[in-house]
Amino acid sequence: MITIEFVHLDAAPDMGKMVVLKETPESDRFFLMFVGDAEFTAIAKEKGLVESKRPITHDLYLSIMEKLQVEFLRCEIHEVRDDTYYAKVIFRTNDTEYTLDSRPSDAVVLALNRKIPILVAEDLFRRNLTQKEMMEYEELIKKVKF
Amino acid sequence: MITIEFVHLDAAPDMGKMVVLKETPESDRFFLMFVGDAEFTAIAKEKGLVESKRPITHDLYLSIMEKLQVEFLRCEIHEVRDDTYYAKVIFRTNDTEYTLDSRPSDAVVLALNRKIPILVAEDLFRRNLTQKEMMEYEELIKKVKF
Repeated sequence: MITIEFVHLDAAPDMGKMVVLKETPESDRFFLMFVGDAEFTAIAKEKGLVESKRPITHDLYLSIMEKLQVEFLRCEIHEVRDDTYYAKVIFRTNDTEYTLDSRPSDAVVLALNRKIPILVAEDLFRRNLTQKEMMEYEELIKKVKF
Repeated sequence: MITIEFVHLDAAPDMGKMVVLKETPESDRFFLMFVGDAEFTAIAKEKGLVESKRPITHDLYLSIMEKLQVEFLRCEIHEVRDDTYYAKVIFRTNDTEYTLDSRPSDAVVLALNRKIPILVAEDLFRRNLTQKEMMEYEELIKKVKF
């Protein structure tokens, strides 16, 4: 599991809304997820990029949770199955630890809000091509007969 | 405050997605709110109209809440200000009662899930025109000079 220090939002006209997770901003490997508008806004809000006039769903429940004895420990994005990514949220209450199934986007919002670690399984990362690999790839492409 | 027994979902091409709240299905007055896709889906899910493969945001937090000592009491949609409706969620934990600000759609999802009362302030209701009013209105319209 890799600890994420960098959560970046991106949007491209042909790709839609994306969340990019990296170990550090400089890291060349990344975990990429495509999200809907609500998830994008929720993460943007946690990053202080947008404000919402009214509490969003996360705000409501996190406000409730503030009144309760619950300690959030970490979130893990641990698996991909049938093109769907799976995450879990780990928390403790009354000396018992619980693990709950979550969508990665909800886990990231919760983690940013509660300032707990976001961990991503190493095999879920993709890597940017290096300059050398890019050139090798271009050479390879030239040899392909269309 | 009026207690809601009937939560109905509706969608019209030119109007968008709507949630209609009524005292009873037969009642001629109603509270209407326009919602986004995520809110519409969350309410549809609570009504058993759709299933989602993965837990939505409400599911995650409601699962966390199941492990905690929290008793939800009721939701109230109490005010409209600058075209925005305001709701509150009232809950109890450790013998203390708390009231939290919420969007009406989140309050309705939570209420349906926890089977707690949904209350709407009487002045927020609209009323269908009766047959008699409709005819009076048509007579009135005939007299109007354009």
